[in-house]
Amino acid sequence: MISEAALKRYSSLLHKKHREEEKAFIIEGEKLILEALESGKNIEVIIAISENVASENLLTRLQKKSVRFESCTASRFKKLTDTVHPQGIIAVVSSAGYFKPETAAISSPLVLYLNNINDPGNMGTILRTAGWFGLEDIILSPECVEIFNPKVVRSAMGAIFKLNFYVEIPEKLKALKKKGYKILVSDMDGDDAGEIESANKTILVMNNEAHGADTEIKSIADSIISVPGSGKAESLNVAVSAGILLYELSRKI
Amino acid sequence: MISEAALKRYSSLLHKKHREEEKAFIIEGEKLILEALESGKNIEVIIAISENVASENLLTRLQKKSVRFESCTASRFKKLTDTVHPQGIIAVVSSAGYFKPETAAISSPLVLYLNNINDPGNMGTILRTAGWFGLEDIILSPECVEIFNPKVVRSAMGAIFKLNFYVEIPEKLKALKKKGYKILVSDMDGDDAGEIESANKTILVMNNEAHGADTEIKSIADSIISVPGSGKAESLNVAVSAGILLYELSRKI
Repeated sequence: MISEAALKRYSSLLHKKHREEEKAFIIEGEKLILEALESGKNIEVIIAISENVASENLLTRLQKKSVRFESCTASRFKKLTDTVHPQGIIAVVSSAGYFKPETAAISSPLVLYLNNINDPGNMGTILRTAGWFGLEDIILSPECVEIFNPKVVRSAMGAIFKLNFYVEIPEKLKALKKKGYKILVSDMDGDDAGEIESANKTILVMNNEAHGADTEIKSIADSIISVPGSGKAESLNVAVSAGILLYELSRKI
Repeated sequence: MISEAALKRYSSLLHKKHREEEKAFIIEGEKLILEALESGKNIEVIIAISENVASENLLTRLQKKSVRFESCTASRFKKLTDTVHPQGIIAVVSSAGYFKPETAAISSPLVLYLNNINDPGNMGTILRTAGWFGLEDIILSPECVEIFNPKVVRSAMGAIFKLNFYVEIPEKLKALKKKGYKILVSDMDGDDAGEIESANKTILVMNNEAHGADTEIKSIADSIISVPGSGKAESLNVAVSAGILLYELSRKI
């Protein structure tokens, strides 16, 4: 049975400040835990209301890697999750190694730059979509919501274990431009995304839904692109736009 | 100042059972209220923490339509909303007239059939996207989340005021098929959506993310279609898939 002190420490990981201090975050549910293990991520401890919550498959894998397993009553377990229907099993995962220091080394054909994406559900969904289209490198502006936020982790459905992350101000995209990357910035009233010519190296920039593309990011753009609509509705959700643009671009690369 | 009894009645509209009984629902924020007015929807009352929350533009429009305006203290106002950061103004809107009785009259070129979409955020985002692409008719399976759910209304961002809704079991799609509609069902391992030939009359079926397309809906399909991915990630969010498929289909119609 987990100690009160340990429970307190782990439940503090639901807050950003403590995740940063402890360099760890919480993932919930067997599916995500299996994805973390498959991606070779470092699991500090598993906490569950009972061993019975875990499948044989998961237990065997955890034993192989000598991951510690702690049990916890259902009422205390609730302190470790922010979901309405907890799955009864969480893992504490080290947050080391997700961020790469230098965008200069990026060479994948299609890269996403997320500019001030602050809604955790949208962020997670965008990362999940990026994983679907096989992207490797995601650059975040410093204002973006933290990728270890529980709602981001949940909506990303394992994608954060497979992507390389970078944090850079928009200005730094200029260096990648010199290396041959074409910068496409998503915004209202841009060119029809379907008409964009193919490029071997593309950075797609998605912006905050409420604020749109700012002058700085526009000044760096090779093209401003949009998803053409009927004109009857005002806007698209940013994760839906990102999905459509990644679909269109990944066909052309 | 609003009476305690009226407050109780209106706050009960946050629950489905009462929305059904009262045939009304709540929308929050000036932007949505303006959209409802523009679409000619019937507003029963506006409740706000102060008239100052509303713009001159909104107040003028409300006066023109003789909409009742009630004020309410900030602490009591919280009972009328399920958001973390309330906007200080809501409207009670009649839910009459959103649903059409007969799918037989449908004639728009691209129609969406939502099969057991139960997540309100996804439902709202799909409706918002349908609005963007100029769809007119949305058919819901009986298991779908209610469109007047506050989170659906919020994520749809005004789209529910512009669409015609129908509720039908999948079986009923056969009648539309006889009228010349091609039924495209989204599922894993379907044909590449980009290779689908154009059709003048198409119904796109989106399914529940966890359960996918069932045998019944597949048996009605003319084609099963998918968004091709890299194979590295397991799935796409259903609202993102819907966005990509609507984008692809609306270019071909």
